[in-house]
Amino acid sequence: MTTRVMKFGGTSVGSLERIRSSAAIIAAECARGDSVAVVVSAMAGETDRLLSLAGSLGFGLGDEETDVVLSAGEQISAALMAMALREHGLTSRSFMGWQARIRTDGPPGAARISGLDASPIRTALGEGCIPVMAGFQGASVNERLRTLGRGGTDLSAVALAAALSAHCDIYTDVDGVFTTDPRIEPKARRIGKISYDEMLELAAQGAKVLQTRSAEFAKARSVPLRVLSSFAEPGQSEGTMIMQAEDIAERRIVSGIAYARDQARIALRGISADSAALAAVFGGLAEADIGVDMIVQSPASETDRANLEFTIDRRDLDRALVCIGESDARDVLSETGLAKVSVVGLGLNRRADVARILYGALGKQKIAIRTVATSEIKISALIENDGVEHAVRALHAAYGLDGADG
Amino acid sequence: MTTRVMKFGGTSVGSLERIRSSAAIIAAECARGDSVAVVVSAMAGETDRLLSLAGSLGFGLGDEETDVVLSAGEQISAALMAMALREHGLTSRSFMGWQARIRTDGPPGAARISGLDASPIRTALGEGCIPVMAGFQGASVNERLRTLGRGGTDLSAVALAAALSAHCDIYTDVDGVFTTDPRIEPKARRIGKISYDEMLELAAQGAKVLQTRSAEFAKARSVPLRVLSSFAEPGQSEGTMIMQAEDIAERRIVSGIAYARDQARIALRGISADSAALAAVFGGLAEADIGVDMIVQSPASETDRANLEFTIDRRDLDRALVCIGESDARDVLSETGLAKVSVVGLGLNRRADVARILYGALGKQKIAIRTVATSEIKISALIENDGVEHAVRALHAAYGLDGADG
Repeated sequence: MTTRVMKFGGTSVGSLERIRSSAAIIAAECARGDSVAVVVSAMAGETDRLLSLAGSLGFGLGDEETDVVLSAGEQISAALMAMALREHGLTSRSFMGWQARIRTDGPPGAARISGLDASPIRTALGEGCIPVMAGFQGASVNERLRTLGRGGTDLSAVALAAALSAHCDIYTDVDGVFTTDPRIEPKARRIGKISYDEMLELAAQGAKVLQTRSAEFAKARSVPLRVLSSFAEPGQSEGTMIMQAEDIAERRIVSGIAYARDQARIALRGISADSAALAAVFGGLAEADIGVDMIVQSPASETDRANLEFTIDRRDLDRALVCIGESDARDVLSETGLAKVSVVGLGLNRRADVARILYGALGKQKIAIRTVATSEIKISALIENDGVEHAVRALHAAYGLDGADG
Repeated sequence: MTTRVMKFGGTSVGSLERIRSSAAIIAAECARGDSVAVVVSAMAGETDRLLSLAGSLGFGLGDEETDVVLSAGEQISAALMAMALREHGLTSRSFMGWQARIRTDGPPGAARISGLDASPIRTALGEGCIPVMAGFQGASVNERLRTLGRGGTDLSAVALAAALSAHCDIYTDVDGVFTTDPRIEPKARRIGKISYDEMLELAAQGAKVLQTRSAEFAKARSVPLRVLSSFAEPGQSEGTMIMQAEDIAERRIVSGIAYARDQARIALRGISADSAALAAVFGGLAEADIGVDMIVQSPASETDRANLEFTIDRRDLDRALVCIGESDARDVLSETGLAKVSVVGLGLNRRADVARILYGALGKQKIAIRTVATSEIKISALIENDGVEHAVRALHAAYGLDGADG
């Protein structure tokens, strides 16, 4: 018998009607004979509502009491889901994070799961009960409620699946992972199977289907992962399987095109070229939790000096410039209004013409490329915000995805 | 140093503004040097909202998962109150019922507090922290969340005060206990001191200031109780002290006039007069948790038969008639549209003219009396709903309360 952890996000439990539809999907899964545990987010909009209550009193994410307020969101949806399952004649009960023994460390609002004694959940499963666990939450060693940060319910689900040696199905409002955003390119196709690494790159490069941390966790613990839609009729969503690369029989060269708007570029001209000075810059940014991408270093005209450029999210720009203020760069420039388009695929490292295709496709659309950065399974181009849609469509075609089959 | 448990009801934490006002009252109390623990209800309207969510899925009060949903209400208000206290520069943290080790038994929705290990709260107090406990909730021995029933936050506060050997201040939206409802009789005055027993009778006869169970608990554990307003400026509400009768120096004969609208009267004509049959009737009603009052038994014309009459809340009538269906009464009659007015006072048992004053005052108003029932400290009359306001005013004057001084 397969054990399956089914996770339902905010839109999948966003109303009593949506909770009922999701319950019907769970009931159908149970009817197939699988042993099922459920993990839920708060009802869509509820976390924002609770956060604004705390905010009105001057407390935001990162405060212990804000976590207590936020945890109530998943508490409510978990209990309502257990009720909805009982409407199907199933036995079900809710578990708060602390009841499921999810132990956390790290700061409020961004805690890490440090332990998960799944025994209460396992006991419930053994009694033929469907446990519905409140996602996004746990308790610290001194019994304070903690939340795992936005998207943390994915992480709760993957961690529970790992503890139960179970499959993990992430139900969301799209039918899986697509070759690119269908709102931009109607020819986008659902990807049937994708490797953890490609999923990670797509998530890091802007695809919002799955939280990066949970994809990393799933990879590290080899949790078989599936992303599928709760908006389809029970059993009708095929979704995307996420697995080890070696388990995918037919690998395509390119899996998908991701994009992220509203990037900023920072250029440090004439910074000391010794590695300690450069490490200090990135250390400061890391400490401020600012993600850095597309790093380019080149020699400056002055001896022992270098020019350093990199991109960050536009919303982090002000904080980043404060961090950088302490460097010895002769000049600090910043630019906004930029976007990143990225091609992700396991086959990219075997192809010599990857960059040629990228430059060719974007050149034909007269889209100026500021910077190009590559990794083993990814090539990204920095362009202007305006060019994103044309670039995505051009790359989707150029890398042969328009005709790709799920 | 006095330890004080300050309880704030739904209207006292009904909005962020109200939470801030109540926090100012707590801060003022702390500034006087008392050691303070706080107990809060859910924000006004929140319990009803959560109950209707559960209700839409077909689950009501009495279900385990309904309790999980409802508990979220106090969880949110407790954390918000802790935040508001920190705005005053105070150290504060929230405690859910389970974190404060409130152990319950009894059914979901109407659990009893079976144990309260106040050590986590005591530790917080010892560290100069103001603990804010979520009222109305606890956890069963198998770690399920439980609620104590409507008004249960009063009970949480009194139980915590008993465990801490503390005073218990119940903050509400009125400035204490009044000689009668000021909306009916503007001459109603605040009662400065009242005995537990009188408070119990007033609560049982319709005064909504304090939950009956919590007044009983306070009496049994001799918890000094005070009812006062959170809508006054800090320190400006004098409220009503509730204490042992012997501690009240100047006792008035009558303390107050209570009333309860929408009563129903049931008459069982010709029921077997043996006590087993009569006990069976009341046993069935007690099992259905239906409160019975104003019992009158008289001999029927038939030998060994009796006529039995009593009153109940109108909303319990249908259920009550089902319970009674099994009796051997020749005839069962019921009547609605009735109300109960009650005169409560420790001095009533020493006065021979109590009934005379009642009949005289109501007679002068041409208010027909159906039944009269008396106890040591109470006399009640059953009248028609229409007559309530006139009756309350007439009795308030007749028993000398119009000029009573707080």
